[in-house]
Amino acid sequence: MVLAAARAAFAEKGFDGATIRGIATAAGVDPALVHHYFGTKDALFLAAVEAPADPAELLPEVLAGGPGALGENLLRTFLRLWDGPRRPAALALIRSAVGSEWTARLLREFLVTRVLRRVVSTLDASPEEREARGSLVASQLVGLVMARYVLRLEPLASATPESLIAALAPTLQRYLTGEVSLPAPG
Amino acid sequence: MVLAAARAAFAEKGFDGATIRGIATAAGVDPALVHHYFGTKDALFLAAVEAPADPAELLPEVLAGGPGALGENLLRTFLRLWDGPRRPAALALIRSAVGSEWTARLLREFLVTRVLRRVVSTLDASPEEREARGSLVASQLVGLVMARYVLRLEPLASATPESLIAALAPTLQRYLTGEVSLPAPG
Repeated sequence: MVLAAARAAFAEKGFDGATIRGIATAAGVDPALVHHYFGTKDALFLAAVEAPADPAELLPEVLAGGPGALGENLLRTFLRLWDGPRRPAALALIRSAVGSEWTARLLREFLVTRVLRRVVSTLDASPEEREARGSLVASQLVGLVMARYVLRLEPLASATPESLIAALAPTLQRYLTGEVSLPAPG
Repeated sequence: MVLAAARAAFAEKGFDGATIRGIATAAGVDPALVHHYFGTKDALFLAAVEAPADPAELLPEVLAGGPGALGENLLRTFLRLWDGPRRPAALALIRSAVGSEWTARLLREFLVTRVLRRVVSTLDASPEEREARGSLVASQLVGLVMARYVLRLEPLASATPESLIAALAPTLQRYLTGEVSLPAPG
């Protein structure tokens, strides 16, 4: 199975380390066949993760307002996805990642390489700083998903998207471009 | 089974609505027996949720510094619990809540009635405002757990507790006592 081999490769080697050639070999098929059915490595990765959306398609509107509007635009796009018809698929991905170490690795790889690195790519900062800021953003966004859709904590669960943006976008904006002491290993 | 009946009652009726008498009746035993083996309703609830810690025991140190230090003290106590030997039990509770609607209800009830309401109890605000502020705090704390311990996003996963406190306590403090637009239903 090509998708099973892809999941194993992406989880083990990461997005950058895995190759279509290696995945094809592991699955016992010709690389040309993998290209034919799945297209690019990017598309194969989205299929392997069962991603509910292609971040590359949503990115332009997130970045459109510049770094100063990044927090608000990111949250607005994020909530539109989560409040839309793809929520069950997105929730299934979170559930699967919480239950399985391998899916957790895939989801982390997806978040880091497909979402966070792109969102922070326009920031004027070192790669380490961008990664640290991105991880803080992820902690608030994943927590919002857990509180609103999994635990259904009120008033977050029934709050309007606009009121959530007003409450949380300042946090995201601070993590992205504000004064923040960055998390660091000891 | 008393614990199964307790889980069902707490998930269905909430902590305030469930009674030891009702739980005993559902389990087909004498209420005195439930009191004898589990003590108070509070203790029975902690057992039913399989809570990794008793929030009531941790609360004094969280509240000790007053409202102005609540964000930092809450996060420090939270990280000490999660970085300690009870992490597997705490993670098991999160995993279970993500996989089961019933455990999600129990965990929500636990968070709201045993943790959040007590943490915000000293704030000078209406019950609605306290609940909204508490839910924002929960969204960042649960997200930290997901990012650091489940997804193991770097640098959050290997960051020192002190660097996490420096990064995230200002967010919690703003949610608790700062200027924040509160999430509201439409």
